[in-house]
Amino acid sequence: MHPPRGFCLNSIKSKHKESFGLITAPSGMKAAGIFTTNKFPAYPVIFSKKSVKNTIHKAVLVNSGSANAATGIDGKKQVDEFLKRVSEKLNIKEKEMLFASTGIIGKRMNYTEKQIKDLIRNKNSKNIKGFSKAIMTTDTREKVVKKSFKINKKNVNILGIAKGSGMVAPDLATMLAFVLTDINIEKNVLEKSLKKVSDISFNCLTIDGEASTNDTVFLASTCKAENSIIKNTGRNYKLFFENLKSVCTDLTEKLAKDGEGATKFIRIKVKGAQDKNTAKGAAEAIANSPLCKTAFYGASPNWGRIICALGRVNTELKLEKINIKINEVEWIKKGKVKQHNKKHIKDIMSRKEYNLEVELNSGDKQYTAYTCDLTPEYVKINALYVT
Amino acid sequence: MHPPRGFCLNSIKSKHKESFGLITAPSGMKAAGIFTTNKFPAYPVIFSKKSVKNTIHKAVLVNSGSANAATGIDGKKQVDEFLKRVSEKLNIKEKEMLFASTGIIGKRMNYTEKQIKDLIRNKNSKNIKGFSKAIMTTDTREKVVKKSFKINKKNVNILGIAKGSGMVAPDLATMLAFVLTDINIEKNVLEKSLKKVSDISFNCLTIDGEASTNDTVFLASTCKAENSIIKNTGRNYKLFFENLKSVCTDLTEKLAKDGEGATKFIRIKVKGAQDKNTAKGAAEAIANSPLCKTAFYGASPNWGRIICALGRVNTELKLEKINIKINEVEWIKKGKVKQHNKKHIKDIMSRKEYNLEVELNSGDKQYTAYTCDLTPEYVKINALYVT
Repeated sequence: MHPPRGFCLNSIKSKHKESFGLITAPSGMKAAGIFTTNKFPAYPVIFSKKSVKNTIHKAVLVNSGSANAATGIDGKKQVDEFLKRVSEKLNIKEKEMLFASTGIIGKRMNYTEKQIKDLIRNKNSKNIKGFSKAIMTTDTREKVVKKSFKINKKNVNILGIAKGSGMVAPDLATMLAFVLTDINIEKNVLEKSLKKVSDISFNCLTIDGEASTNDTVFLASTCKAENSIIKNTGRNYKLFFENLKSVCTDLTEKLAKDGEGATKFIRIKVKGAQDKNTAKGAAEAIANSPLCKTAFYGASPNWGRIICALGRVNTELKLEKINIKINEVEWIKKGKVKQHNKKHIKDIMSRKEYNLEVELNSGDKQYTAYTCDLTPEYVKINALYVT
Repeated sequence: MHPPRGFCLNSIKSKHKESFGLITAPSGMKAAGIFTTNKFPAYPVIFSKKSVKNTIHKAVLVNSGSANAATGIDGKKQVDEFLKRVSEKLNIKEKEMLFASTGIIGKRMNYTEKQIKDLIRNKNSKNIKGFSKAIMTTDTREKVVKKSFKINKKNVNILGIAKGSGMVAPDLATMLAFVLTDINIEKNVLEKSLKKVSDISFNCLTIDGEASTNDTVFLASTCKAENSIIKNTGRNYKLFFENLKSVCTDLTEKLAKDGEGATKFIRIKVKGAQDKNTAKGAAEAIANSPLCKTAFYGASPNWGRIICALGRVNTELKLEKINIKINEVEWIKKGKVKQHNKKHIKDIMSRKEYNLEVELNSGDKQYTAYTCDLTPEYVKINALYVT
């Protein structure tokens, strides 16, 4: 697999020290970013939020192992110096850089001269697998999706790479995602697309209801594809957006499936809501409920917990209007359980992946949340993840 | 231990069928109640919310095993018939009864004629232990607190009995609590006291962030103590309230300590907040965070997770103003960790019980949340709790 034209990816993977990833675009890229809503954002988030507004970027730097969050003035100084040195060695301006970190909060970076040298020396490599592995923390596998398609008969590519498995909740999480494309597109259209696509993909993911200090998604393009430039939301934009959505949704599902300790992946679709917030609130109430999530783990058809979770939504819902299906099998009809389907439902819940569909019958708004089960393994992983 | 004057407590404990508890006050009691905020309240909640407005009550009935929630029209009919028959046998009016249920949502009651007969036959017994055991579900031990004190040189008693260990969150949970007293007091003062005391005790409890369909707290008095009647919030009221607060706080701590699978009990006090909501939001953000709760389980001094949780509060907080102590030992000072205390802090976190104190240095409002750790056992209990 190759990155979209004009991108290089390189990394230094270290077991005991920090690992680093570097994306470069020697002839430049246009970039857009979305960031955590946490009130104590990590320093790389503060840096990149400002830097991403610049017109042209040439490098995206990532480190895993320390979050560069809550490290005080000394931590900020260290990051500033680090960015300065890397930019000097790359012979680019600091404002042409973007930066993201993932790892332990309160821990400062720990890197050697040799690591930086190695990272820079191989800056022209195109090692997607290496990069996607270097940014992992408790992830058990790398998450990479690529789509290629044509606009104006010209080849266009989108490559998405993400990490994240715990501390993952709607409105981001310790999730980092890098979506790279070569489509010829205006920067403001890139920005709009990222916002829009995140609301139906990355922001719909919840592992444990946590939102980290470091969440970052970048969408960047080298504009090397030879399509006529995309300036607005016309037909070509739609084609691009459908492919972007596919990449981001696939990445989101991969993140949910690799949730810490997860044994099951569940798509929770709420439809027929009177408004978008109700649909979102209902889907998230189930996706964030420890009791629903432990029932998913035990493949226990405990529908009462789903009803109870729905009862916590801030809108008035009518129980007698609610239908619930699991993989198309009727479970709840008009607020009452279909007892004869119990065994069938338990069978489906024993699978690694299934869809839960909640029909509120009160309107036409819908929302899909992506989540996983809550397992003893989740607790063990997080009880032992040391500061 | 005896109940306050004028109260009888009786129960039928069954391993395989429902268990029942009955509190009677043959010469009457004044009662106040608070109930779940869940939008799909169980039928007993709907019944009691209405009934509690009546002037005088003579019996409080409880069943454990089924929640009488989401059981449809047939479930409502069954409850109505059950209440009618019990009231007839007790020779009281239905509107003189209060009713609470705890157990599996969507499951209808399952009782025998003999059970009702036995319950009624022993209606004059004063078996506190039996009652407190009969209302348990996944609780591992009964929760009973009693305080006796004097007002106008007259003896006054308060007895609190509670159940609940999972599905417990602020603004109640599958928590049932029965607080019985013999103080001579007006009904409206009883109502005010219950609201006020719950906001600093029962409502501050969070086990897993869930709020059930059945949560109920009753405060009832036979008024048999010979103190001059308490009509307002004067000196005698204050004396009563302090004792009521002590009973309710003790019960709340007992509930937290018996959280499903819990190995540790943690009081989280947030002080120095600019307003009450910030104090509450900050305490609950920590108490509900799976990552903080797994760190509590692992006795892992992962202070970054606490900072991260605080960063999710809806108010602007200044990290550099935040101090955190654990059992009086400084952990975070002005947003920075005191590394030299790490071992000491780990030792404290290994204890069964400790206090976490967060000082925001932005005002004078405070809030205490009561919680427990999140353990593999919690997941196991709830994965296997069958519908």
